[in-house]
Amino acid sequence: MTADTRKVRVTVMLKQGVLDPQGEAVRHALGTMGFRGVEGVRQGKLIELDVTSGTTESDVTAMCDKLLANTVIESYRIEM
Amino acid sequence: MTADTRKVRVTVMLKQGVLDPQGEAVRHALGTMGFRGVEGVRQGKLIELDVTSGTTESDVTAMCDKLLANTVIESYRIEM
Repeated sequence: MTADTRKVRVTVMLKQGVLDPQGEAVRHALGTMGFRGVEGVRQGKLIELDVTSGTTESDVTAMCDKLLANTVIESYRIEM
Repeated sequence: MTADTRKVRVTVMLKQGVLDPQGEAVRHALGTMGFRGVEGVRQGKLIELDVTSGTTESDVTAMCDKLLANTVIESYRIEM
């Protein structure tokens, strides 16, 4: 990352109501390992982009809509 | 999620210096799709846990060390 780039974080999670088998597997594994008190697990993606200073939030929104998230089943949040 | 549970977020990223082929594939795909100005991409996991109020940060640290992260190549951060 050079001086004229900055970090953008995109978090992508399955929408509420969409079954999350990966999260469910983690929840089950934690229970099997003896960790009590974990009632639910959802697993998503965290994507960190190093972008040049000319990149706008609407550029990142377009990246999310076209590639980073499947907006039928996933929601995303951009922090920049 | 009931009244006596709370959300804990765990982010797991590959350590600096560990090759991230998934992130590299995303970076390449964005370039192919015409998005300029993306110089680097790292992809990690975001795990949201619904835990009961008795769960401490050290419990979550143990979950990370034993299951959620591979600490040889990944680092994690807990927000609770």
